[in-house]
Amino acid sequence: MENRKRFNPEKLRVFSSRVLQKLEVPEEDANITSEILVATDLRGVESHGVAHLELYVSQIKQGIINVRPRFDITHNTNLTAVMDGDAGLGFVAGHHAMMNIIDRAKRFGTGFISVRNSTHLGAAAYYAMMALDHDMIGISMTAGSRLMMAPGSTSRASGLNPFAIAVPAGNKHPFILDMSTSIIAFGKIEVAKRQGKPIPKGCVIDDKGNSITDCTMINPNDPNWKGGLLPLGGLLETGAYKGFGMAVLIDILCTVLSGATLDTMSNHFFGAIRVDGFRPLDEFKQQMDELIDSIENLPTLSGVKKVYVPGGFAEEIFIDREANGIPLDEQVIKSLKNLSEEMDVKFDIES
Amino acid sequence: MENRKRFNPEKLRVFSSRVLQKLEVPEEDANITSEILVATDLRGVESHGVAHLELYVSQIKQGIINVRPRFDITHNTNLTAVMDGDAGLGFVAGHHAMMNIIDRAKRFGTGFISVRNSTHLGAAAYYAMMALDHDMIGISMTAGSRLMMAPGSTSRASGLNPFAIAVPAGNKHPFILDMSTSIIAFGKIEVAKRQGKPIPKGCVIDDKGNSITDCTMINPNDPNWKGGLLPLGGLLETGAYKGFGMAVLIDILCTVLSGATLDTMSNHFFGAIRVDGFRPLDEFKQQMDELIDSIENLPTLSGVKKVYVPGGFAEEIFIDREANGIPLDEQVIKSLKNLSEEMDVKFDIES
Repeated sequence: MENRKRFNPEKLRVFSSRVLQKLEVPEEDANITSEILVATDLRGVESHGVAHLELYVSQIKQGIINVRPRFDITHNTNLTAVMDGDAGLGFVAGHHAMMNIIDRAKRFGTGFISVRNSTHLGAAAYYAMMALDHDMIGISMTAGSRLMMAPGSTSRASGLNPFAIAVPAGNKHPFILDMSTSIIAFGKIEVAKRQGKPIPKGCVIDDKGNSITDCTMINPNDPNWKGGLLPLGGLLETGAYKGFGMAVLIDILCTVLSGATLDTMSNHFFGAIRVDGFRPLDEFKQQMDELIDSIENLPTLSGVKKVYVPGGFAEEIFIDREANGIPLDEQVIKSLKNLSEEMDVKFDIES
Repeated sequence: MENRKRFNPEKLRVFSSRVLQKLEVPEEDANITSEILVATDLRGVESHGVAHLELYVSQIKQGIINVRPRFDITHNTNLTAVMDGDAGLGFVAGHHAMMNIIDRAKRFGTGFISVRNSTHLGAAAYYAMMALDHDMIGISMTAGSRLMMAPGSTSRASGLNPFAIAVPAGNKHPFILDMSTSIIAFGKIEVAKRQGKPIPKGCVIDDKGNSITDCTMINPNDPNWKGGLLPLGGLLETGAYKGFGMAVLIDILCTVLSGATLDTMSNHFFGAIRVDGFRPLDEFKQQMDELIDSIENLPTLSGVKKVYVPGGFAEEIFIDREANGIPLDEQVIKSLKNLSEEMDVKFDIES
């Protein structure tokens, strides 16, 4: 796989930021967005990195994304708040909201914010990880458009609603769980589509309940397509109500708690909790290291290299990519070249 | 199935409390414990109701459960705390801890507590639901003994670590998600065992990775038994790292955050968050009703009666059982009769 060409992270950042600035995105906001996109590629989540840049460009051009948003706090207590994202870039809204609650948690111990009227914010992990530098547990979730089949139904009923939780460790990598509440994230289908590969059976179904593995048959933008992704757990007898229940919970925290209307596309919820509100930090971090070590040193089934604690696999990818560059699929390189021409930004991203 | 004999909830409560009081459990603590056990049976979670009474009796007799615990708050801020459960009944520790943070949330907006050195607390839902009466979102989780296989490993690495989240609604039933992070809860195996039924394939494996469906082959108390339960998601390609990741997260919040040692049996984490910290309560509840209605009125696949939002199915069972009594398995009736004789408490529980 890694005979793909590698690209320079810093140059990718600058390129992406310049493209956004050409569309009147303020420099700071463009930098925040590109930083998050490239950080996501560096951790191996290729479905949510610069591959999506063309999508945001298109949404800005269509006026779906507002490049000059005003983030109003519409409800405010010491610990909790609601923010209106004003249809701005979800990356910028998420970054702003997370900074807001990290500040609350610094002063009071915890902070939570629900954000309505936003747009796609990329990978949830980045925002949760912002809390790590402040020795806090970070929580990040986002409710998206209705792509998940309700278990037992012929209809889609909730978003795939990813969430991320980050917990600091000491010398080991932090714990970073970043997951959609469906069996597979939609981004994985996009990656499989551009690589011409099928997806595993039992992850996506049509409205008769039949499994779909051919990615070209999955078209949520087509109003006539009635299929959907199955929640984590898959079938009712293997726990589908659990994945679906988590998806609905995230709808509640992002959409109902923020006062958005139920059919809106993109709302978020973030949290930050100080570790030293429970335990001295050094003791906590030392025991986190022990926990992570105890799992990552477990014996493996034959054919399995290593057991990972969430965050461990991404950390290994990060170390490789930071040193050697980010590999990109041909289709992604092509989309960036197109943007380069279209927006008149020099295509100068090679290592 | 419901040709089983029904029993009177109030009489079951009184019986259970008397049994515990015979073992020197203080009256108030015995009442709290029996109230939670019977409330759990009323909601259909038969794996965690009075069927477990004999287990707690045995643990009290063995000295595993301390009947006169002192609950010390060992770390304290306005919003967060750590409590030592002093090996008391997990039910009482959980109830006490939840009251503690509901009070914090009333004053400040949110409250969180991590509890170490506790024992089994039954079903997680009860504690989360305690927040509902105060118009708060309730969170409850517990880390148990290592029964979950780490994905890709031949070893068990974490507890099945159930959690529950309860969110108030208006005229509809509240949202109550109560789930283990394994495909099936261990209690479901106990129920299948006493009913002589197999469990579905792919939920429990031996240390070679082979599926076990015969419940008599699942013996975690036997040190020679090397199998384990699979995390929600099942296999790596269908999201097992997600269920496992949640299990590890719950280990962190219950065990590491509370300063327990990593191999302890039972630690908890609870949270309470005021809804009106985000939105006026009446607006929130009205929209919760809309969300629940929109899902519970979805069209169903053939053979499926209704799509449920978490909490909806248990609510229907509750309405039936509160009116008509609690059905019990023959084995459970027998265990209660044995307790009646052994503890010299009159067996007077019939409707």
